[in-house]
Order: sequence, then C-alpha cells, then structure tokens
Amino acid sequence: MPSLRVALAQVNSTVGDIPGNAAAVRHWSRAAADAGAHLVAFPEMMLTGYPIEDLVFRNSFVAASRAALRTLAADLAADGLGDLAVVVGYVDADGPAPTSSDAVPGSGRRDASALLFGGGIAATYFKHHLPNYGVFDEDRYFEPGDSLTVVRLGGVDVALTVCEDLWQAGGPFAAARRAGVGLVVNINASPYELNKDDIRLSLVKRRAAEAGATIAYVNTVGGQDELVFDGDSMIVTAAGELLTRAGQFTAELLVHDLDLPAADATANPAGPVGAAGESPRVEQRRDEEMAIERFVVGAAPRPLTDGPAVGGIAERVTDEAEIWSALTLGLHDYVEKNGFRSVVLGLSGGIDSAVVAAIAVDALGPQRVVAVSMPSGYSSTHSRDDAADLAKRTGLDYRSEPIQPMVDAFLANMSLSGLAVENLQARVRGVILMALSNQEGHLVLTTGNKSELAVGYSTLYGDSVGGFNPLKDVPKTMVWRLAKWRNQDAARRGGEPPIPENSIVKPPSAELRPGQVDSDSLPDYEVLDAILAGYIDGDQGREDLIAAGHDVALVDRVLRMVDLAEYKRRQSAPGTKISIKAFGRDRRLPITNRFREGV
Amino acid sequence: MPSLRVALAQVNSTVGDIPGNAAAVRHWSRAAADAGAHLVAFPEMMLTGYPIEDLVFRNSFVAASRAALRTLAADLAADGLGDLAVVVGYVDADGPAPTSSDAVPGSGRRDASALLFGGGIAATYFKHHLPNYGVFDEDRYFEPGDSLTVVRLGGVDVALTVCEDLWQAGGPFAAARRAGVGLVVNINASPYELNKDDIRLSLVKRRAAEAGATIAYVNTVGGQDELVFDGDSMIVTAAGELLTRAGQFTAELLVHDLDLPAADATANPAGPVGAAGESPRVEQRRDEEMAIERFVVGAAPRPLTDGPAVGGIAERVTDEAEIWSALTLGLHDYVEKNGFRSVVLGLSGGIDSAVVAAIAVDALGPQRVVAVSMPSGYSSTHSRDDAADLAKRTGLDYRSEPIQPMVDAFLANMSLSGLAVENLQARVRGVILMALSNQEGHLVLTTGNKSELAVGYSTLYGDSVGGFNPLKDVPKTMVWRLAKWRNQDAARRGGEPPIPENSIVKPPSAELRPGQVDSDSLPDYEVLDAILAGYIDGDQGREDLIAAGHDVALVDRVLRMVDLAEYKRRQSAPGTKISIKAFGRDRRLPITNRFREGV
Repeated sequence: MPSLRVALAQVNSTVGDIPGNAAAVRHWSRAAADAGAHLVAFPEMMLTGYPIEDLVFRNSFVAASRAALRTLAADLAADGLGDLAVVVGYVDADGPAPTSSDAVPGSGRRDASALLFGGGIAATYFKHHLPNYGVFDEDRYFEPGDSLTVVRLGGVDVALTVCEDLWQAGGPFAAARRAGVGLVVNINASPYELNKDDIRLSLVKRRAAEAGATIAYVNTVGGQDELVFDGDSMIVTAAGELLTRAGQFTAELLVHDLDLPAADATANPAGPVGAAGESPRVEQRRDEEMAIERFVVGAAPRPLTDGPAVGGIAERVTDEAEIWSALTLGLHDYVEKNGFRSVVLGLSGGIDSAVVAAIAVDALGPQRVVAVSMPSGYSSTHSRDDAADLAKRTGLDYRSEPIQPMVDAFLANMSLSGLAVENLQARVRGVILMALSNQEGHLVLTTGNKSELAVGYSTLYGDSVGGFNPLKDVPKTMVWRLAKWRNQDAARRGGEPPIPENSIVKPPSAELRPGQVDSDSLPDYEVLDAILAGYIDGDQGREDLIAAGHDVALVDRVLRMVDLAEYKRRQSAPGTKISIKAFGRDRRLPITNRFREGV
Repeated sequence: MPSLRVALAQVNSTVGDIPGNAAAVRHWSRAAADAGAHLVAFPEMMLTGYPIEDLVFRNSFVAASRAALRTLAADLAADGLGDLAVVVGYVDADGPAPTSSDAVPGSGRRDASALLFGGGIAATYFKHHLPNYGVFDEDRYFEPGDSLTVVRLGGVDVALTVCEDLWQAGGPFAAARRAGVGLVVNINASPYELNKDDIRLSLVKRRAAEAGATIAYVNTVGGQDELVFDGDSMIVTAAGELLTRAGQFTAELLVHDLDLPAADATANPAGPVGAAGESPRVEQRRDEEMAIERFVVGAAPRPLTDGPAVGGIAERVTDEAEIWSALTLGLHDYVEKNGFRSVVLGLSGGIDSAVVAAIAVDALGPQRVVAVSMPSGYSSTHSRDDAADLAKRTGLDYRSEPIQPMVDAFLANMSLSGLAVENLQARVRGVILMALSNQEGHLVLTTGNKSELAVGYSTLYGDSVGGFNPLKDVPKTMVWRLAKWRNQDAARRGGEPPIPENSIVKPPSAELRPGQVDSDSLPDYEVLDAILAGYIDGDQGREDLIAAGHDVALVDRVLRMVDLAEYKRRQSAPGTKISIKAFGRDRRLPITNRFREGV
C-alpha cells in the first residue's frame, strides 16, 4: 500500500491580491516540502481570493489569474519544489488565455483547481456543482465542469474536486468511486456559520463513503467583507474515520501520512509526465455521467522522510468562543486587507459598543482602537462611568466629545420635536465619528446588533454610520452571551475581564430622551429574538410563528417592523456573517413590498 | 381563418399587494371585455408584482399567490367575464398548494403563467428560460418548466410563454413551431434600459419567425425599487410585421384583431372545458425537447363585436425623453408604493439638484416637493439665486437653512481641518434634511449622479443621505443633456423651462471650500464618462481603455478611484436603473479588493 504525506494549507488569501496570494503558495509549499509532504493542497480560489464576484467578468482579471498560475508553477520548480504536487484553486476560462482585448465567452468561466508539478500545470479540474443560494451566485459566474480529473501521484490515484461538489450527492464523488481513486482532494472556500463545522464533518464522512476513498478537505481561513472563513480542514477515511482536523480561524499547515490503495495499473498507462509545459498523458473514459480524465505525474512513490507525520485533531469550542473568533478575525481582516491603521467607535457604556470595543481590542490591540464617549444631557452618569471603566480595562484610546453644543445649534435654528430630536442626537454623534475618521484616518465601526437591524431600532446616518459592523449578524441575546463568555474567559486565563459588569446587567437604553429604555419600544429581547429567528433565519410566516406559541399581536407588530426597516438595512454597513441567514446578500428582499401576512 | 381580438394589458402592479393587483386584473379584464376581446394578457407576475426576490422563500407568500389566482378566476366569472380568456402571471410551486406550515420543496417554485377561463384555471405554464445575469437571480428562485402549454381558444392554438423564454433560442418557441400554434402569448416583466426597446422589437421578430406564429408581447409598466418597467408591448406576425405597439412608461390596454391560422383539428380532441375546477382535457406529446401539453377552452370562435379593433403603433422618442420618463415614473412609483406624501431635497443651485427637483415636480407636482437651500460661507451668490430661480419656475416649496451656525458649533468643539471641514459641511446638510424628514414625513431625495458615485466624489452621510436617488444611474454628461432637453421640451410646449440656464452652463462645484470646482479633482466629465462607460458598463480593463485612446495616467487614476469607492456605493440610496449596468445588484463587486490593473 503506497503512502502519501499530505499537507493541507489552511491559509488566508486576499481577493484580488494575485501576487501576494501566489507568494503565500510558495511560502507554504516550502513549508510542506520541508515537512516531507508529497502533496500540498491550497483552498478554492487561493490565487484570486474568494469570492471575486463580478471581477470575473473582467477579462483582464481572468487573464491575470491564468498567467499567475503558469508563473507559479515555474516559480515552484525554481524554488526546488518541482517534485511536490501543489493543488491550488484559481479562476480559469475556456479557450486560449484571454488577453485584455479578447472576449471571454460569457459561459466559459470556471472555478478551477490545478495540480502543479515539475514546473508545469499537470492537470486541471473545473468545479461541477455550483452553489446559487444564500450568499452564493455561482450560476451567475461559472460554467460547471463535466469531467472528473484523476491524477496518479506516487502510485495513488487522486481526484480533484472543489467545495460545493461535496455538498451535493452524485457528480464528482460518484465518478471518483467509478474511477477507483484512493484519495479525493476537496478544496474549499466555505464561509463560517455557527455550527457549520458539525455539518461539515458528517458531510465529508458521507462523501468519503460514497467515493469509497479518503477525503482531504482543505478550507480557507480569513475575512472577506461580510464573510469569514473558518478553516476546519480535515482528512476522513472511506470508512468514516477522522484522521486529523485543523482548528477554526487559525492559519496552519496540517500534515498527515496516509496509507492509500495502490492505483490499478491497468486503468492507466504508467509513467511520469515530462518537463513543464509538455502535455500530460491522458486517458479519457466517458460514460453517461461525468467523464473521467486521467493524468500521471511523478515516478514511483518517493519514500517518506523521517518519522510518521500525524496531524492532531483540534478540539471543538463553545458557540461563544467560535463566534468571538469569527468576529475578531472578520474585523481584523477587513481592517488589514483594506489598509486601515486604526478604528474609531462611539462608546456609550451600553452592551453593544462595549462588546464591539472588546472585539476591536482583541483584533487589533488597544493602541489601534479609539473610543469616543459622546454624552448628551440625557446620558446617565453610569453610562459615562461604564465607558471609562471599559477604557481603563482594555487600554484603548479614550476620548470624550459632548454633543450638546452641536445639538443646541440645530435646535436653535430649526423647529424640531419628538423623534426628530432623538434622531438628531444620534446624527450629531455620527458626524463627530466621521469627522474624526476624516481627520485622523480611522475606520468607523458601527455597533448595531442584528435584532436592532431587524426591527429598525436605530437612526439612519446616526448610530448606524460606519464602514464595518462587527455585530451586524449577532442577535442581542447573543451579544450578552458573548460579553459574559469573554469576561469569564479572561478570568479563566487570569486576565482582566474587558467588559464592565454594569454594561452587561443594566437595562438597555438608547438614552435619547429622559428615562428611555429599549423595552419602551421593543418586546423583551428573548421573545423578540425568537420571533426574528423564525421570520428571518427560518423564512417562517405569521401562522407558523403563532403556531409556535408567539403572541399574535406581537408577531404582527414585529413582522411589520422588520418589513418596514428594509430601507435602512439596504444602506447599512457590512458586517461578519455568523448565522445561516445574515442581512445582506444572504437575504434579498424588496424595499417596496406591500405583502403583509394575515392582513 | 379564425379571428381573435387580443388585448394586452400593459399595467402597473405592486410587489406584495396581491389583493390590489388582483383588483387591477378584474378592472382591466372588464375593460378588455367591453372592447370585445377574446383574450387579455397581463404581465409576468402580475398578481405578486415583480421581482419578489426572497419573498418567494416564504411559503405563506407562495400560498397567497396560489389562493389569489383561484379566487381571481372565480371572481372574473362572477363579474360576467367567464368567457374571456385571461392570461396572468403569478408565482406557483409544485405539489399541493402549500399552507404556511407546509414546506415548499426548495427546487419547486415556478414563475408561472395561468390562463383563466370559465371561472377556473384552465391551463398553466412554467417559465423555461430563467435569467441569472445582470439584476436577475432567477436560478436562485425558480425551477425551470420543461413543457410548453398550448390552449385551443376560439379555434386557434395559443402557446403560453414568459419573458426570458423570448431572449434565448430554442425551448418554448421551437416547441411552439412543432406544436403548430397560431399565436404565442409572451408575458413580461422586462426592466427598462436605454434603447432596449430597439432590441426587443428585433428579438420578437426573430422568435416569431422561429415559432412560425404571431407573438403577443405584453410587458409591465411602473417602478419597483431600482427597476422601472417601460411597457413597450407589441404584436408581431410570423412574417415579422409589427401590427401594434404600446408606448413606453404608460399604462394602457392595447386591443387588436388578429386573423390567425385555424388549429389542426387532428392534433387535439375538440370541445370546451367544463365548469371551473374541472380538469381540462389534456393531450400530451413528449419528444426529446420540451413536451407539449394541450388544453381546450371555449366553444367555436365568438364573433367579433363591432368594427375591427386596430391598436396604434406608438412613436419612439428621443433618448432624453425616454430617460426623463423612466426617472419620473421610477421616482413616482417609489414614493407612491411606499406611501410617502412628499419629498425633500437640498437645492444647491447646481445642475444635479436642479434636475432632481424638476424630475420630482414632474413626478409628484410642486406642492409635494420641498427644496431646501443650505448655504454656507463658501456658497456663491449665484448658487442661492439659481436655487431660488428654480423654485420660482416650478412652484415647489422652497426654504433656506443656513448651515454656518451648526458647522461653527462642530468647529468650536473639535480640531478639524482640510477634507474633514469640507465633509462636515455636507454632513450638516444631511442632518438638516433628515431632521426635516423626521419632523414632517418627507422622503429625502439624494442627488449624486452616476459619475460621482463611480469615483466616490461625494460625502458619505453628507450629500449622499436620502431614501432614493433619481440620478443614481445617470452619468453627469447625461444630466446636462436631460436638463437641456427638459427646458427645450417646455419651450416647445409653450411652458416655463424649469431649470435655470445658469445651473446648466456654470462650471460644476461642490462649494465646500473657496473657489472649489469639480475640475480641481476630476477630469473633464466628457472624458471621465467615456472611461467609466468602458470600465463599468463594458467591464473593460486598463489595456482596453488605453487601446481606446485614453490617457494612461488618467485611466489609472480613474480606475483606482472607482475601485476605492465601492464602500460608499454599498451604502448608497437606491435609484432607477437606466443603463445596461447600474450600480447595485447589476454590478456586484467586493469592497475588499486589491486587484489593481497594470500594477
């Protein structure tokens, strides 16, 4: 039984930074070779980043991806890594490499995986199952591949697949069984959702059984706008045994030795591929399902160097720990990949801004976080005290900008009352934060949670201003859970809990009029979040929610608030998706919409 | 040769207003019957409005659509319209009508057309070609139909098709030829783009030739968020003759008599359908392409009443007239369908706000438009004069709110300089407009044109505040053309040109610092708009633009500005799409994107 040492490069790439991503492939390929690996697999679209969205329609972008792949293959050989099989995702197109003035056929773009070997592109595979639900629009972008690519490497037949191929029955994994492969390499850009890791493991097991082969699953890690990728790479045998598993939200190289069935010599003429650029030897079989294209690289199995490589199995963590890591990485990468040095946020003393401040400090360090207390005449003493307390606990840059002089200037020149005066205060705060951003270069963080966004409990261009919102997809009840977890975690580690206890326990209030509390306008958050989870995440209707035991009048009120707040959400800042249905591309609703259930 | 009097109901529906849309079908069906029509066709998704987006995932919505269709069929019969064939679009799902607690299979939702007759649903058809490009996401929402529905009506075989079926070769129109139909009814929700009407006519001619049948094409009219539907309904013979054509942006009933080939009696057992609810008689033929399902309604052709009905052929108008109508209707419907009584905008004396004010007055009447001059120390005298002049010409509600006291309050309390001070002025204006909105209930209009949005020449939460932006998809050079056209058109009609000449001829300026003009920061708009059209509308890359003769340094500068402004566009107000690629769902780009062409 031949052995392969497989390395899974669970690494971070950046959309559009093709040279930087190629450099990362070279760096981690060197690390894999140093660990004695025969094969290293990088995530889906490693070279381009993921998702590239409409960049795929620009021929110059596709041409850059294709050219970078060729250069990368040559560079790896020049680095002395020509005998390492490197599997890497990129974007391809049918036909000759498009130049910027060639038209790429509208239907010919491919979400592709290449196996680089010996200085050349030894084989390529085009993703077969294209996701077109949730945040995914891949039918818009790609043509599905219709053949499975099998590469004989070190005496083992290895099939190449991409991401969604794993999530649907049939297709490549069924073809892999017919092809009799020993290993399926599945490269991914699979965005984080709470508890998705549990689904993934059972899915990989199911497909491994379907293919009758070991699956090496590698996922990217890092933030890209509203998505964060959690890694969770793993290797599972055909029998369903989990051999090794990476952590979530960590960049790492997972290296593991696999004893794999020898390829059937009769299925394919043996022999190495020639020099880079020479055509690989191909045997092609077609049947009623996917065709199978066979390639051969390398000679006999290179012996394993040094002792057996055994990757560990990373422990699973609590929901709160998982979400905290997702939000921290999502914010960190938005800041870093967009070139900001620092962030600024309004710190009210309330729970939302306290949690955002703590996330920002964890993501960036306290010296890159500016927090501004912006008290008004309605701000309580405890608000200012709690904000100052958090500043002291975390060491962030804390300032105070009282808003009353500016508010008074508006009130002296306009006739405003009621809600207009409440919103005015929030908007003056927004102007202050944006002025600090313009003056000093900070990214403004906004701090509205998912419950508020759902019901529109925020001031447009007021507390909603900002370039990024870490809590956008976090329901209010989870904000509290996160705060408690973060403090307890600090205590466990012997550190300072960052969030003042008073911010956690006091009744939430916008403090825009005397004595105001959220419960004046909203139901209890436990009740509200349960209705929102049904209506938003679950697409349940009024009758479903009532059948689930919710109060009829409350359901009607909440659904109406959610429907009417769509226009605010349309102008809201991006923020990290953690749920199965986040606001944004995950949930596309018209603003103009007169549908009212049960009316 | 049997004759059919066909009515095309080019009418406006509202997303989610199922009862209101059903009432409109009854109203216009009565009008069609009064005109002696045998058949009246309503647009795609008439019952639900279009596009319904993720509403389709709510079972209660699909159930409401299906229930409303059954009720509508019965109501039409009760109205005495049981012998009128009514073709109407709605959303359907496979299997029994889902209740709110039934799961609709994820893949079983249908963009459907029904033929109502005799109090029942005589036949249904499911859209075969689903658009999944541009603003369309129909692969996300619908399962394609795989059979053509043919209904024998008054001795003529009539095929039902929906919208995109017309835009792709093969499928339903090829099946219609095989089925030997005399008429194809194609119901549409086809959004307006400049010059799309020319493409439509040639497309209808091509498909009529392909089907060997007359095509009755009916499109909806009206605004829905960023889309506006222009109507342009028409009837074209198999020989390519345009018999009648409706105007654009008008609600109308187009009635025309057609002499059509008699159905082949051997192809189908003749005979009327029974009472409502009874199954229609079906003969089904399958072949390698689409199956054909045949239905029969009605008895022998009811004789035509009174003289021949001949619809006119509406004249085409200039680009400027077409766009003005699109923008006016788009704004009008956003305001009306969302229940606003009035709009408010900042009137600077510049061309953008002048054109938006004129559009708003045309859409809503001057008494529903509030315009606010918000001069600063940098505002020129001519700006205030020009704004006041426009107010006088149009009769809108004009006010003045000088911003200096509020700006001074910020400056006295914060240390701001340079761009931060410029943006501060724009943001104080934004706060004033939003305060007026909160206090008085107006919808705020924002006035940034497409060129500004492209390069980010605006202040986020400043001049960009607003719930709707009529100029969002209008390049600056077109803004000037529109202004000139509108004034000339007024002069032609003997009315008052609404836009002060000085607003048209003076150099554009944001007036945020002394002597500032746009040309300090931006290239000449003729040059800029040409680069933007290539880069945005055409997905051209740097090399294409340079090959087209643009200055290299300028191309690099403009492309960089466009790329870096994506975060502002993501939070921008919706506005009517008029180009082949509007910002918004038409162009989906990552914010985090390090791809820089030619670097």
